[in-house]
Amino acid sequence: MNMNHLLQQAPKNLPILQARFGLERESLRMNTKHRIAQTAHPEKLGSREFHPYIQTDYSESQLELITPVSISTKEARRVLGAITDVAYRSMNPDEYLWPLSMPPQAREDEIRIAQLENDYEYRYRQGLGQRYGKLLQSMSGIHYNLELGADLITQLFEASNYDSQIAFTNDLYLKLAQQFLRYRWFLTYLYGASVVAEKGFLQEELAHPVRSLRNSSYGYVNSSDIHVSFADLETYVQDIEHYVKTGQLSAEKEFYSAVRLRGHKHNRDYLTKGIRYLEFRCFDLNPFDFLAISQETLDTVHLFALALLWIDRPENVDDTLLTAARLNNQIALSHPLTPLPEEADTQTILDAMQAVVSHFQLDETYQELLETVKQQVAHPQLTLSGQLVDRLEGHSLEDLGRKQGINFHEYAWSAPYALKGYENMELSTQMLMFDALQKGINLEILDEEDQFLKLWHKDHVEYVKNGNMTSKDNYVVPLAMANKTVTKKILATAGFPVPAGAEFSSKTEALRYYGQIEKSAIVVKPKSTNFGLGISIFQDGASLEDYEKALDIAFAEDTQVLVEEFIAGTEYRFFVLDGKCEAVLLRVAANVVGDGIHTIAELVDIKNQDPLRGRDHRSPLEIIQLGDIEKLMLNQQGYQPDTVLEAGQKAELRGNSNISTGGDSIDVTDQMDESYKQLAADMAKAIGAWTCGVDLIIPDSSLPSTKDDPNCTCIELNFNPSMYMHTYCYQGPGQELTPKIIAKLFPEIIS
Amino acid sequence: MNMNHLLQQAPKNLPILQARFGLERESLRMNTKHRIAQTAHPEKLGSREFHPYIQTDYSESQLELITPVSISTKEARRVLGAITDVAYRSMNPDEYLWPLSMPPQAREDEIRIAQLENDYEYRYRQGLGQRYGKLLQSMSGIHYNLELGADLITQLFEASNYDSQIAFTNDLYLKLAQQFLRYRWFLTYLYGASVVAEKGFLQEELAHPVRSLRNSSYGYVNSSDIHVSFADLETYVQDIEHYVKTGQLSAEKEFYSAVRLRGHKHNRDYLTKGIRYLEFRCFDLNPFDFLAISQETLDTVHLFALALLWIDRPENVDDTLLTAARLNNQIALSHPLTPLPEEADTQTILDAMQAVVSHFQLDETYQELLETVKQQVAHPQLTLSGQLVDRLEGHSLEDLGRKQGINFHEYAWSAPYALKGYENMELSTQMLMFDALQKGINLEILDEEDQFLKLWHKDHVEYVKNGNMTSKDNYVVPLAMANKTVTKKILATAGFPVPAGAEFSSKTEALRYYGQIEKSAIVVKPKSTNFGLGISIFQDGASLEDYEKALDIAFAEDTQVLVEEFIAGTEYRFFVLDGKCEAVLLRVAANVVGDGIHTIAELVDIKNQDPLRGRDHRSPLEIIQLGDIEKLMLNQQGYQPDTVLEAGQKAELRGNSNISTGGDSIDVTDQMDESYKQLAADMAKAIGAWTCGVDLIIPDSSLPSTKDDPNCTCIELNFNPSMYMHTYCYQGPGQELTPKIIAKLFPEIIS
Repeated sequence: MNMNHLLQQAPKNLPILQARFGLERESLRMNTKHRIAQTAHPEKLGSREFHPYIQTDYSESQLELITPVSISTKEARRVLGAITDVAYRSMNPDEYLWPLSMPPQAREDEIRIAQLENDYEYRYRQGLGQRYGKLLQSMSGIHYNLELGADLITQLFEASNYDSQIAFTNDLYLKLAQQFLRYRWFLTYLYGASVVAEKGFLQEELAHPVRSLRNSSYGYVNSSDIHVSFADLETYVQDIEHYVKTGQLSAEKEFYSAVRLRGHKHNRDYLTKGIRYLEFRCFDLNPFDFLAISQETLDTVHLFALALLWIDRPENVDDTLLTAARLNNQIALSHPLTPLPEEADTQTILDAMQAVVSHFQLDETYQELLETVKQQVAHPQLTLSGQLVDRLEGHSLEDLGRKQGINFHEYAWSAPYALKGYENMELSTQMLMFDALQKGINLEILDEEDQFLKLWHKDHVEYVKNGNMTSKDNYVVPLAMANKTVTKKILATAGFPVPAGAEFSSKTEALRYYGQIEKSAIVVKPKSTNFGLGISIFQDGASLEDYEKALDIAFAEDTQVLVEEFIAGTEYRFFVLDGKCEAVLLRVAANVVGDGIHTIAELVDIKNQDPLRGRDHRSPLEIIQLGDIEKLMLNQQGYQPDTVLEAGQKAELRGNSNISTGGDSIDVTDQMDESYKQLAADMAKAIGAWTCGVDLIIPDSSLPSTKDDPNCTCIELNFNPSMYMHTYCYQGPGQELTPKIIAKLFPEIIS
Repeated sequence: MNMNHLLQQAPKNLPILQARFGLERESLRMNTKHRIAQTAHPEKLGSREFHPYIQTDYSESQLELITPVSISTKEARRVLGAITDVAYRSMNPDEYLWPLSMPPQAREDEIRIAQLENDYEYRYRQGLGQRYGKLLQSMSGIHYNLELGADLITQLFEASNYDSQIAFTNDLYLKLAQQFLRYRWFLTYLYGASVVAEKGFLQEELAHPVRSLRNSSYGYVNSSDIHVSFADLETYVQDIEHYVKTGQLSAEKEFYSAVRLRGHKHNRDYLTKGIRYLEFRCFDLNPFDFLAISQETLDTVHLFALALLWIDRPENVDDTLLTAARLNNQIALSHPLTPLPEEADTQTILDAMQAVVSHFQLDETYQELLETVKQQVAHPQLTLSGQLVDRLEGHSLEDLGRKQGINFHEYAWSAPYALKGYENMELSTQMLMFDALQKGINLEILDEEDQFLKLWHKDHVEYVKNGNMTSKDNYVVPLAMANKTVTKKILATAGFPVPAGAEFSSKTEALRYYGQIEKSAIVVKPKSTNFGLGISIFQDGASLEDYEKALDIAFAEDTQVLVEEFIAGTEYRFFVLDGKCEAVLLRVAANVVGDGIHTIAELVDIKNQDPLRGRDHRSPLEIIQLGDIEKLMLNQQGYQPDTVLEAGQKAELRGNSNISTGGDSIDVTDQMDESYKQLAADMAKAIGAWTCGVDLIIPDSSLPSTKDDPNCTCIELNFNPSMYMHTYCYQGPGQELTPKIIAKLFPEIIS
């Protein structure tokens, strides 16, 4: 059996869709004047020496966004979305990405070669600029990497008559590459999107808009005396080596083809080690999509690639490809609304796509994608270039580029606390992932629901759960912090202020304690409290009778009862990291403040407009409700939802200060006296915590804390303290914490 | 207000019972010949240089068991019980502790001075031997340390007319010391228990048994020219300093008194820093109690001490005490069955004890203790010495000593996997506590229910939860092991054998996978399984129809479904610690093996006789049940509970191999091929775990594991692997693991 008919004879449950995907998207950074940005590559993006996700392509302003290998097109798009999000929010806030493949109007001197540290790379780009022109090099596209599934290849190999799996794999990919070049014109027709060159790009203006300048002879092609055979792998390798030897190509990678073999640095290695995947390089940016390539395009191309394997390979490869190249150029340079020429054999492709869908019983989605393609074949105006001619102003798409560029810019900045595509994850984890992607730390989500990440740089691996559960803490310390009794004992032994109190296993014992707390404010509570059940608070001390009653209530819930000093004052959260207090937060119960005009219900609505407010902990602040609890609270203050408060008058909506019930977060890091920050840091150190949330009750924060009079009490230590709430606050500047976690995990790359 | 009437005027809810306690118990080690053991101090007990719990007193064979400070008498007795348990099980298994204060018959040359490294201590003991005789120094007793509660002292101080709390505290303790010496005869009467000297102890035999030789002039007293005043603290300090200066005492501590001031090394420090507690030194060993002092005695003495504070102090202290000493000697040397002499004013003491009980409304227990004391006052035969005269054989108590000594020895060894008094805690934690006490590592239980320990030696503190959750593991590693998906990804990435499989979020996707698993043994399961719900196992592969059904069942339980390779073979647990596999265990489902005589029900009963079998995880093996599940299992094999199995015939009682359902544990550490142990250790290393339980399924353990063919699959890593089950096994030698944990936590003292 040879490469033809391999699929036709495969069982229907062959894992035909099993594949891995990778995307590389280029785009120019633009400034407010809609010119190519003259700024340097964003400093926030760390070092280009190793950044796996965000690089510069040819010019300093041309970003290249690179996804890791993904096991589905959805996943590839999702991670590209996140990388795009990071790229946007790492640039100057007024810069945006040019959404078109064709550059905007620009002078050659506006295009600065990427300032890479690697000298070879810089000189390589200098050579390209001289040979092809810097403007031409500024065209942008998307590369689509496709690796067929390991099980798929193995099953096909096992059904074949090949002896060597490497030889089989090479032949399979070579067939795919041949077929891709043979039918490339089909993609040019469907997805071509470089319809005009802006003024100054070409010597001579085009007579009419075209499908894809970038995929035509005007595009990014090798000089016409470069002829590389795709007939067999050995010849392919030899041909390229020959041109590099003669200097006609400055490097193997200067051989531009719509498809490139991938997996090894040197072509010759394919012969012994095997091709690992193919890179399809022909995609123009789709300016209607934030990611410049749609989900439908990704899946259609995947189906198209499988169809290419279904179709028999040509007899005479190189001749066929030469003809095909001419046909592609013709279609690329046709007016977008013209039909395909007759020699463009769409039927073979459509039939093959249908055959794959039917033979392997692919689900409806694929049938629908195929129907769409059929429509586009029949109606040129439905193709991408067909849609773009509608948007031409004069002979230019600059207006569309600016408009879409700014739309996408606004979208990227719309929820700056979140990471696009990962909004189902915890906010602090989203932020940490953002920071990792930004600094070029390799990221893999090991368990999404569990917020479990793997981060690595070279050989250095760090696992992170829930944003700050890391290798930096030792195991027993968080376990100690999770146990209030243990925490209290450790802090008390180290001499820190904790609520005085005692633990009792009998009422008699507890009653005997009364003499010691008779005049004190106390809390009586079961040792393990569930949702506050069984807790009694006596802010002015308890009568013996009340104390006894409180004990009965508490003992009804647990066999152990705590009688603790009640601490009055304001509660602050101190966030301590690696021995230093990095943020202090005050949480205030849900409330509205009157303006003399609006009702309380209206004020709640207005306050809820804040883009930081959302639902289910997926935004830094929560929507304020006006339910039974809030209405009862209003009632106690003599208000109703339709009460109009005087200007400055405050209505409390909740008795508890949790952010999750609509509370306000106020960043008071800068105002808090240094002595308290030091105390919180010392407490974390005493228990041995790297990350720690210290909850202090401070009666009067205008007085400093001293050794003799700490002037505060620690009521809890938190082993997995929330970070996002310190960063995006209702009031106050906010403190970035996740970048500090990343920097401490990877000090070798972030100083 | 002076020291008198202080209690009388205190409010009834004064925390009168608040106090801290400490006990020191001495005992001679005995050999099988019922002679004083000539062996060295047990090596297992580590170093006497710092051991806080187990020391040697005067002679090498005289153990001194020392409790830490305890907040109740119950707690003090509990920890003394544990220390006693450790002492017993650290000696030669055939040695026992002499339960009487008076030594057994012994020659002076059988008494070897304690071989302490500290040269001063050794020479001090040599001097004592010369001055008092080595046999006299071998008498044993219990010292009872009492510290009045901090709140109690503060409240009394605040109600007093003293300016300085130190002066007040010193006066309070001095009054207590004076009164103690004044009424010491009362305790000699009640608790004296050194009724005879064995042959050779005295030059001249006593005419009759007495109450307490040890508390008489025959006992351990300074020479008659030592007169230390207790009238005031300054004089007390000066007197002792004088005798040390003149050489009449070799050190301050050579001043023997039934009460000693405590809290500082040098007496003079009491004047400025204050007395911290008192040491009552007069208690003879109670041979009827495993701990040599009963709970009732501890509480009665506490009440007695409070009564001493209630009674006015004498006008002329030193005269009163001189008279009191004579009275005490008289009572000590009286026949145990004689009544108290008239000058012994019991009424004052009993009235004061009653006054304390009534005034402070102490609970019934104390009233009952007082009633017992009254009975003992009225009936000498109820006192401890009164009971002992009954047990005399000739003029000797050696028989009683041997009998009780052996009883206690058997009791100590009765459940060698447990730590007496702490049986409510997890077994592995009990074992670890045993090891810590044994090696002299300071131990505090921070949370008993949570199995949370604090261990320390000098400045080095380690916290341990559940036996092996320590500072040695980093936080994120156990979190990774707690997540099966994450564990599997990490192991797979590192190249270790894990079950192949895939995770699906839709049935369509999962159905498409069928082609890849059609012929394989598989498990279909919800990602998060609760008690095995929704799991389907196909050991011979599944038909598409069954596979689909299994998917429906699994998706009904979770939105994520795993389809995994089913691994056949035997499951072994490898316990890895710090890079080394220390134990391998095979667990076998509950079963009995026939003998041709007994029914299955009888065989179960016989198997359950094993002292290792108990209930609720508080013993190494669990009682085998004969409930519905077991009966069903028998039924499937064609058996009934009254079936008599042939010799060697095995009946399975359970389908699962859990120890908790009566399974057998088999230690196969020595038999397991080294290659598997290395593999398990490597897996732990790959995930970064210090402690780790590696569950491997091995189809054929007679074949070694190799790089190319690991010949096994890892199905789980456990972050808090059970240790006790490897130590006390149904079969096999068992491996001690907790001592290794302790040794690695404190390498500075255990090599």
